[in-house]
Formats: sequence, structure tokens, C-alpha cells
Amino acid sequence: MQGVVKAEPVQGVRLSRDLSEPVPESGEVVVEVAATSVCGTDLELYEWSESAQGFDPKLPFVMGHECAGTVVAVGPGVDGVSVGDRVAAESHIFCGRCYLCRTGKAHNCERLRVLGITFDGAFAELVKLPASVCFRLPESISPEIGALFEPAGVAVHALQRAGSVAGCDVLVSGCGPIGLVVVQLALLFGASKVFAAEPNAFRRELAANLGAITLDPTEQSMDEVLQHMDGGHGVEVAFETSGARQALPWLLDAVARESRIVTVGHPGQPVPLDVAAYINKKGVVLTGVFGRRIWDTWEILSHLVVSGRLDLSWLITHRLDLAEFEKGMQLLRRGESGKIIVYPK
Amino acid sequence: MQGVVKAEPVQGVRLSRDLSEPVPESGEVVVEVAATSVCGTDLELYEWSESAQGFDPKLPFVMGHECAGTVVAVGPGVDGVSVGDRVAAESHIFCGRCYLCRTGKAHNCERLRVLGITFDGAFAELVKLPASVCFRLPESISPEIGALFEPAGVAVHALQRAGSVAGCDVLVSGCGPIGLVVVQLALLFGASKVFAAEPNAFRRELAANLGAITLDPTEQSMDEVLQHMDGGHGVEVAFETSGARQALPWLLDAVARESRIVTVGHPGQPVPLDVAAYINKKGVVLTGVFGRRIWDTWEILSHLVVSGRLDLSWLITHRLDLAEFEKGMQLLRRGESGKIIVYPK
Amino acid sequence: MQGVVKAEPVQGVRLSRDLSEPVPESGEVVVEVAATSVCGTDLELYEWSESAQGFDPKLPFVMGHECAGTVVAVGPGVDGVSVGDRVAAESHIFCGRCYLCRTGKAHNCERLRVLGITFDGAFAELVKLPASVCFRLPESISPEIGALFEPAGVAVHALQRAGSVAGCDVLVSGCGPIGLVVVQLALLFGASKVFAAEPNAFRRELAANLGAITLDPTEQSMDEVLQHMDGGHGVEVAFETSGARQALPWLLDAVARESRIVTVGHPGQPVPLDVAAYINKKGVVLTGVFGRRIWDTWEILSHLVVSGRLDLSWLITHRLDLAEFEKGMQLLRRGESGKIIVYPK
Amino acid sequence: MQGVVKAEPVQGVRLSRDLSEPVPESGEVVVEVAATSVCGTDLELYEWSESAQGFDPKLPFVMGHECAGTVVAVGPGVDGVSVGDRVAAESHIFCGRCYLCRTGKAHNCERLRVLGITFDGAFAELVKLPASVCFRLPESISPEIGALFEPAGVAVHALQRAGSVAGCDVLVSGCGPIGLVVVQLALLFGASKVFAAEPNAFRRELAANLGAITLDPTEQSMDEVLQHMDGGHGVEVAFETSGARQALPWLLDAVARESRIVTVGHPGQPVPLDVAAYINKKGVVLTGVFGRRIWDTWEILSHLVVSGRLDLSWLITHRLDLAEFEKGMQLLRRGESGKIIVYPK
Repeated sequence: MQGVVKAEPVQGVRLSRDLSEPVPESGEVVVEVAATSVCGTDLELYEWSESAQGFDPKLPFVMGHECAGTVVAVGPGVDGVSVGDRVAAESHIFCGRCYLCRTGKAHNCERLRVLGITFDGAFAELVKLPASVCFRLPESISPEIGALFEPAGVAVHALQRAGSVAGCDVLVSGCGPIGLVVVQLALLFGASKVFAAEPNAFRRELAANLGAITLDPTEQSMDEVLQHMDGGHGVEVAFETSGARQALPWLLDAVARESRIVTVGHPGQPVPLDVAAYINKKGVVLTGVFGRRIWDTWEILSHLVVSGRLDLSWLITHRLDLAEFEKGMQLLRRGESGKIIVYPK
Repeated sequence: MQGVVKAEPVQGVRLSRDLSEPVPESGEVVVEVAATSVCGTDLELYEWSESAQGFDPKLPFVMGHECAGTVVAVGPGVDGVSVGDRVAAESHIFCGRCYLCRTGKAHNCERLRVLGITFDGAFAELVKLPASVCFRLPESISPEIGALFEPAGVAVHALQRAGSVAGCDVLVSGCGPIGLVVVQLALLFGASKVFAAEPNAFRRELAANLGAITLDPTEQSMDEVLQHMDGGHGVEVAFETSGARQALPWLLDAVARESRIVTVGHPGQPVPLDVAAYINKKGVVLTGVFGRRIWDTWEILSHLVVSGRLDLSWLITHRLDLAEFEKGMQLLRRGESGKIIVYPK
Repeated sequence: MQGVVKAEPVQGVRLSRDLSEPVPESGEVVVEVAATSVCGTDLELYEWSESAQGFDPKLPFVMGHECAGTVVAVGPGVDGVSVGDRVAAESHIFCGRCYLCRTGKAHNCERLRVLGITFDGAFAELVKLPASVCFRLPESISPEIGALFEPAGVAVHALQRAGSVAGCDVLVSGCGPIGLVVVQLALLFGASKVFAAEPNAFRRELAANLGAITLDPTEQSMDEVLQHMDGGHGVEVAFETSGARQALPWLLDAVARESRIVTVGHPGQPVPLDVAAYINKKGVVLTGVFGRRIWDTWEILSHLVVSGRLDLSWLITHRLDLAEFEKGMQLLRRGESGKIIVYPK
Repeated sequence: MQGVVKAEPVQGVRLSRDLSEPVPESGEVVVEVAATSVCGTDLELYEWSESAQGFDPKLPFVMGHECAGTVVAVGPGVDGVSVGDRVAAESHIFCGRCYLCRTGKAHNCERLRVLGITFDGAFAELVKLPASVCFRLPESISPEIGALFEPAGVAVHALQRAGSVAGCDVLVSGCGPIGLVVVQLALLFGASKVFAAEPNAFRRELAANLGAITLDPTEQSMDEVLQHMDGGHGVEVAFETSGARQALPWLLDAVARESRIVTVGHPGQPVPLDVAAYINKKGVVLTGVFGRRIWDTWEILSHLVVSGRLDLSWLITHRLDLAEFEKGMQLLRRGESGKIIVYPK
């Protein structure tokens, strides 16, 4: 079968056409991949950035961690997943037995492996998965949308961690795909106003289409920003999804006292924080988000999509064949895309 | 001045035209009432029902507890409210000093007095209020909508007590004004589906207009109802707003295991509950709601109305002069109204 | 092997000496039982009360659901439990796949089976269990204490559901084993005072030994009770563990406004509740508890016992051989016991 | 009257003997100070450190913000505080009208003034206070202990912000008075083990006396530390009370995934945080604490002290006259004290 392989510790990937087909072992299934979407982390792996190396992947491996497809083979001891099931994959492959797994935090398993990074992934015709990470897709959900559950789930998780946004002013820093879905969800969950800060005009427009009040943090001063906010006391909930190093200090300035900040974006370097002034005296709650709650986050997402309350289709701006993978990398680098779907077949 | 007075412990009220004008004492203000809306409790007081007598009102008193207007006089020691301020009134007049007031639960003050029940109310040209229960209305909010903050605030409070409804199936029992605003808010706060149960067709239609899936609990079996619900495992959050005695047991049947029920409606008699089967084994959280959190609930409501995310104007179906008060009672009795606004002047 | 069998739909049990030894199927283990403790539900099953029949057990079955022992055989596909492991059993046998299991609520699984009631239990030399319900006991925990994790876990779960009791006045209704552990935990978790209401003098003394202020609800008026409580505004958290029908209304009188009540005890009949006065106007949160959170509750309990902060050994008042099972039933009926441990071998 | 005055923007204070006696204005009371305790911030003000200047105090002013005494005069419009009342003072003087005050967060009022820093304080015979910041002391609480409510309240608030510690391993960084009370409260609220990290041996011994497992972060490696912790997966809750710049990164290493960190100590400079690795991927919740919740925190503290469950008397290691104020500064500088009480009369 064919697949996108990261083989060398340098920039680039290789499209391999003769990968051996995976065979499911105990507790595993094999999924014929219908759609895999491209993530910023894929570009990091492609570039072989320091951040990508931080995941400690073992070369070579098949990339791709946001996918959906159909189960075509089931190993021994698998219970609850059958051949023919349409599934999306949770990319955080958890052991099920460590302290975190046993106390409802499997998404941050102590022995975590990550699909397409430390476990062969889904930019391939077939992917082998533990049955335990398969989420059965309701009939009305297409594989493309199913593939988006992984990244959109991070946004849902961010909202779960933030606590209620109902009646709150919300500020979202960064309008990549996750930031955009955070904007959409904050409005769907009852925020009174959502502000979206993003330097890229293409992305800013996507945020505006969703109903956000957009602003360019490189051009507008915080004073201009704050005058749009109720009573000038700052936003009550903020989300950092850009990973820009200057974003978090900027957010700490923008938020109200006793507010909540959820961080999703990974800054490449340590961020200097004035803990005394901004965490302590401002009484801020700063919460990190990693992965998706298993399966609470997925169920919320699934309910919202199936009931028609959440439409994610606008997020897909490009569709590519596996052979066009490099083109996906270029699109991502330019930042002029929403989500890019790759069809492995 | 004129006002609606409950004077005798029998059915009926008296429209008095020669009430003495109130004079503000220390910490008090006088408000010229621009609009007062009619509540189900007003009908109870009018009828002098057992439930109304349960509030232990001292006759005679001026009725009316959902109001907004303009401050026309300010007593000594008042800080933060001035003549000319447009305000709505919190009807729960709290002492500010008891244990509950001091720990963020002033809405359930140990020495609670209730406007228009145990404290002269606002179906009158002028009403005297402690400055501490005045909520300053943002400019864009009309007195009619301001008067609705008291009842709509109960719905907001019910949602606050329920916890997150995002991605949940929600069931609302009763589509009087509070039930209807609960429907509206559950959708605004991200419920995947909202079911509304109400025998009255007029009210059911109002709920359907808001986006609810409506059902008539007197005609449809629970099996028919449950088949609309995701996976048949029952709703995750339910609100009882009807006060019907059979409603709560019915809800306990309809909800999922480990679900949440918020009760707002006051049943006239004790309700027999199968605690073992429905509270314990089903793992239900049953939460009562009284009044509005001061001022969290009001601020959430205000933000949502000012930002345009919550429209309450549809809720007003009738507008009356003070002299037409009896007509309001008849409308209420028939159940074919949303909110009725009374103009005291 | 020998075991206690409920065979006929009448009062009584049979001590069988020729039960066939269980063989583990896929995902299952067999545990040699070292200790099983006796629960009030066992007496209900023995008596074949209406409440026991409500569990819909299929006769005949082996009773016993609070146990610990050593794994002696492991079926295919078992991962994470090995022969020789010392384990306690979670009695709520969950499917792992329903909506509740997948969203962190496996203790209230939609396809729940209960050990010793709808699944052959542990008043026997050997018990067959799904590996998924085995909790590995730390070395320092004896099988007797391990057997108590199931009932003590209900008390921990009750505290988890109640929210913080730190600095609160707490009232516990009923001083059976679960009520007693609730008393102990409420003090361990920082309650300022714990009141324990129990008519049985033997149990009341056990509560007093733990540090509770005890009272006899059949002899003392609520006024006498309330004068011990801070400021007379009532307790902030109450636990109903007696199952007495009059207990919940009594608690609703005793608690403060905006307080929390957790119900664990199963009343045999519906309880009439004045929802308007006590749930709504008092703003009470009434929460049911069933089973134990898997595995949060177990981990909390295990940490507390291993660190020496929670001693459960005082709770064991009697030790019996399997042949003395009937004696255990008599002890339980008289209410003059803490926990009774039965040794199947 | 006499008092300790910070008059010049240099190191040192002046003991003035001819301060004019304060006269209460509207809403104010005058308290005869019985005891004022010394805080690390007092040393900062004495030294006129950058951190002290950051509070923007207006010279000259009377220092002292942790006090208790008796009301000797009451201004007009005061309700609920009378001459003769024994009170402790909340040092965060709040406006009562801003958005934060109106939504239950008065401790972080938008117009906050701080007693003894931006408002004349209590190292003086008399102090003038808004009646709104007076907490009436129960009879059994002495003025010395009452004065400790302000600093001990910060510790209570830290526990409130942390969420439940019951059954958790807890790590406290820094064993100054606030860190020590955090240790004491974590144990009182049910932590399974409390680790206390502190380089100063005197303070480490105080922590050990409270039941903590102590360690010297300058001598012991994290590996040595972690081997004491359950299962080696790190502590679930940590408190940073030292203000040392290296403490927070150290804590982020020590905590478990999905853990909670509460910061109380004010580092003098920005702290570089690896947000990607430690906040995001570790899924940490980092929460700042400022002041005390008004009055929830005070009530919890008061209940615990009155019921005898919390003893704070051990915390007082030195007692001084006002004239010995300089000696207090020296004691503080050496770090060989718990709390120092100053008697202004």
C-alpha cells in the first residue's frame, strides 16, 4: 500500500508505494482510511523542527493522525468494534491501565503514544489501531467530517476546560483551524461577544464569517481592543491557540481580574510570565489543554454535529490526493487554508 | 398615586387611586415605574390560594414584583444609585448581613422580603426600594425588557444551577414564560436538542418557534418521547418549570442515569418520589432554584441582551394599563399569553 | 467448592458444598476469596424482601459482593491482571461500551450487573470476575480491609458528590457502616462539626467514638438539634444513609438554605417531598449516590488507607466462617454490629 | 496616638507618637487595635523594595494590614457594626459597586485599596475602616488569632481555589507562615500525604511538626523527592508560596499530568515557563490567589477555629510592642519566625 513516510531526520517526507499492509494483533483493528486531515504538527514533522523532535518519534514512521475510515480487519479479543464499522480515530493511544487512564484522564496517559508520530499513522491506505481508540461514527457523519473530530475535539476540550462562557466576553488568540472552531463553539455555547485576534487577513475573515469581532494584534493597541469590551474590565475567558510567544503575555493584559485563560497553542520557547502581577494579583486561572477527553469530548462533538447545531464543513478549504501531500505542506506554510483533507486512495 | 392593592383575604384586588406617595428612608430610593410584568404568583395572590398564603403576606399591600423604571428620589446614605438612573428591581430584598448574604447567596437571605408580596410592590406609579436591589439598566434596554429581567433571570439561574448543557439533550417540562426562556437559553448555551413538554397548544407553539421539539405529555407516551432522544438513554439535563405534581416523577423517568434535574415550578402539594429507584440508583442530581444570583445572573442576562444574542421581546404578548389589571388575571388563567406588561401610568 | 446460595424465592439461603469451580472465559479471572463482608443488601436477599426482588436476581445464585482475594486463574485476552495478584472487586460489573461507560460513569452502566445479585458472588471459595472489575490492592492492605473497599467506597463517593465539606457543619442521618464511614470521612475532609442522627444506641456510640456529636432523632426535637449548630442557620451538607422513610423530610428541615443533601439509603417506599418549600425555596441540591466512581473513588480510598490517614479496622466487629452465615444475618438484624467479615475457607 | 509610619521613599520607618486620631466618616468605623501581625509585605515596605513600590503607596502612610480590635466609634449610615464589637479587618478594601464586587469577587475589586499600603493601617492605636471590611469575631477567638485571619485566610483561599485535596498527594513549596498554614489545611482537608519544600531548617521543622514530609529543594534532587510519592506519578496538587523564581518551574516538574498548581508567592521577576511542555502537554491548571473570598473564606476559617479543628496559636512565635517594630523587621529578615504579633498599646 502507499503512504507518507517520515524516514530521515531532515526536512521532507517520502511517498512510499510499497508499505506492507498492517495485520491486526490482539485488541487491534485495521481501518481502510477514507480521509485524513492535515495538522500543523504534520508541517513541523515535515520540517523536522525542534518542536517535532520534541515528540521523540522513531524513524521511519507513517505520518497522519486525524482520520476516519472503515474497519476491514479485527484482531483477537476485540469487543465492540466490527468489520464494516465506520470509525474516527482518537490519536492519543492510551494504555488503559496507568493511574491517569484509571481516573478518567486517559487523554494524558502516562505511556501515551501518538498516532502518526510515535505510532504509524493514517496518511496511508490502511492504518492499524487499538480498538480502544476507535470512535464509531453516526451514519450521518461523513469520513471528512469524522477526520475533523480529532482537531475539532481539541477545541471542544478547550471549552470544557474553560468552564461556562455563557454571557461572557471571550477572546480567542489565533485563528488557525483550532482557534476558529473555538470561536464557533464559544458563540454556540452562549458567549455574549467573541473577539478573535489574528494577524493573517485570510484567517481573520474566516473568524468574522463565524460572527467574531476580529482584530489584528500587530496593528491594534490593547486600548483600542478593550474599548469594544463590556465596561472596559476585560474579557472573562480567553483562549490561546496561536502558539506565538508574545500571545500569552498579551492575553494576560487583556483579560479581566479573576478570569480564565486556556492555552492550546505550543510556543516554541519558554514564555516569560509576570506571575506576581498577572497570575496572582489578577487571580487568573491558566489551564492547559492536551488532546480530548475520552469519550466525553467526542460525544459532545458528535451530538452537536448529528443534531445539526454544529457545522464543520466550512472548515475544509482544500482536498488533495496522497500524491499531492507536498502541496498541502505549502498551503499550510502560507497560512491560507482552513483544513486540508487528504484522500489516501 | 394609583396602584393595585391586595387588601382582603379573599379573591380579588382593589385598584386604589389615592395611595400615599412613598418617601425614601435611609438606604432607599423611589422609582417611577415604567413597566411591570405579571407573574403566575400574582394570579395566586389574586386568587388568595393556599400557595399565596404560604408567603405570609401582611394585608394590605401593593402587588407587583417584576418592574423597571427611573429613580426619582434618593434617601440618605445611598451610594451608587442616583436620581435619573434607569433601573430594574431585584424582587428578593436581602438584608446584606446574614450568613447567606455574606457568603454569596443573598438571593436566599435568611430575612428575605419579597417585593409585591411582603414589601409594597410595583403595580403602582411609584415604588420604594432599597438601593441595594436596583440593577442599573444599560441604555439599550427598554423598561419593558428590564421588567422581564426578574422572571428571565430565574431561567438564567436555572441554567447556572444545571451546569453545562453544551452538547446535551435537554428536556423542559412546562412552557410558561420561565419554561420558554429556559428553552431559549438551553439552545443559546449549546444544547444539541431541546425537548419541551406542555399540554397547552398555544404555549407549545411558542416553544416550537424557539427551536424546541415539542410534545404533549398528556397524549404522548414516554416511549414515543424517548425514541427521539439520542441513543435512547434519556436526556442529560431536565428542567421542571410547570409546577404540576406529576411532572417531577415523569421527568425522573425520562432522564438518563447520572443526569441533572433543576426544579423551578412550585407543586401545590408534596410530591411522592421513589428516592431509591430514581435519585439513588439513577444517580440523579436534583437542584432547586429560587430567585436569581445577585448579581451574576443579572450580569449574564444583561450581557446577552445588550450584545443582541438574547432577544426577549417575543415573550411580550399583551400590554395593559393599570386599570385593565383584571383582564391580565383572566389572560393568565387561560394560559394563552406569554408575558403581560402593565403600564402604571 | 462451597458457597452461600440463594436458591428459592423465600426467606433463607443454602450453604452448598458442591458448587462447580468457575473457569475463566475471555477477559475473566478467577479469584480465591480471602474475605467477604456482609452488607444490608445481603439481609434483604436473605429475607427475599420486595426491595431485594427489585434487583431482579435470577435464582439460584451465589451471594456476596464485598470481597478481596488472590487471582488464581486468568482467561484469554486479560491484560493487566495476573495470577498471584491480590485484588478487591468492584461489585458493579460494567459493559465498558455503553454511553455511560464511555463518559466516565461506568458505575452506573446501562447494562449493569451486580456481583452477588445478578452475577455469582463471593460468599464462596472462588469467584469468577471480569478482569475489568479487579482493583489491585497495595501490599500493605489486608484482604479484610480490601473487602471493605466496596462499602467504604460508597461513603467516599458520597463525599465526592457532596462537594467540599471543609469548614462546614455536616449532618449524617443513619449510623450503619456506610453512615459511620461518612462521619469519619467528613471529619477527615475538614468538616467543622459532624452531627450523627441514629436511634440505635450501639451505633450512636460508634459515631461518637469517631468524633461526631450524636443525637437520637426519635427523642430529640429539631430545635434541640439546631441549637448546637453554628448560628442556628442549619447544616450546609447532609447525608441520608439510613433508608428510613422519614429521614429525608427531617433532613430537609435541618439543612440551611442553599445546602446540599446526598442520599445513599434506599427507602422502601416513595417519600413525599415538599418540593416547593424544601427543594425550590430552600435552594437545595439533592444528589443520589450509586456505587463508586471507577476508579477515582477506589484510588482516593487506597491512598488514604495506605498513607495511614484512614483506618477502617475499627469497623470490623465480627468475623465468621462461611458455615456461620446465618449468624451473620441475625447480627445484622439486631443492628449491633459494624462490619461482619466472612472467611469462605 | 502612636503608629508606625512609612514616610520617606527609602529604607526604614518612623514611630510617630503624635498621629491625629481618626474620625469615622459615612460608612466608616474606628477600631482600637488590640493586635496586628507582621507580614512579609511589611518588610518589603520597610526596605522600600521594587515590589513594595509596585503597590504604588502614597507617602506618608501608617503600615499594618493584619489586625483585630474593638470598635470604638461608628460613622453615619453604618449598619451591622456597633461600638463594642470585636472585629478583624479584611485588608482588601473594596468599592462594592464595580463589576467584580457585584459578581462575588470583591477581593479583587477594580478599585481596590489595601489597608496599611494604600490606606492608613493598623500598626497604630486606632485604625479607621469602612464598616464593610469588618468581620465580627466570635467570642472564643482572641484578637491575636483574629489578626491571623487575614494571612491564614490566604491559605484557606488557596485551598478553595485548588479544589479537593482529599486523598491526594500535595506538595507545598515554601514554609513561611502562609505555606505552613497551607500544609496544615491540606492535612485537615484530607490530603493523603503533604510534602513541604523549604531551604530554611527552622521553617522546615515547623512543617514537619504539622505532619508534612519535608525536603530541602536545594539539597535533594527531584528523583529523590518523587520516590516518596505514590506510584511515582507526581503530586496531584501543588502550592507555590515561596515567591522564589525557580520554584514554579520546579513544581511543574514535580506535579503529575492533569494536576493543579496554586500560586500565592510573588516572584520579584518574570518567570520563564515552558508552556508547551508543562502547561499544555501536562494539562496543568495554574491558578493565582489574591486575598480572601469575602466572606466565604472568613466563615470557613472562623468555623474551623471556633470548632477547635484548626489551631493557629502555634504560628505565633514572637510578641512585640509597637516600639520594638524594628526588631520585628530583623526577625523577619532572618526567617526564623512564624508570625510576630505587635501590640499597639
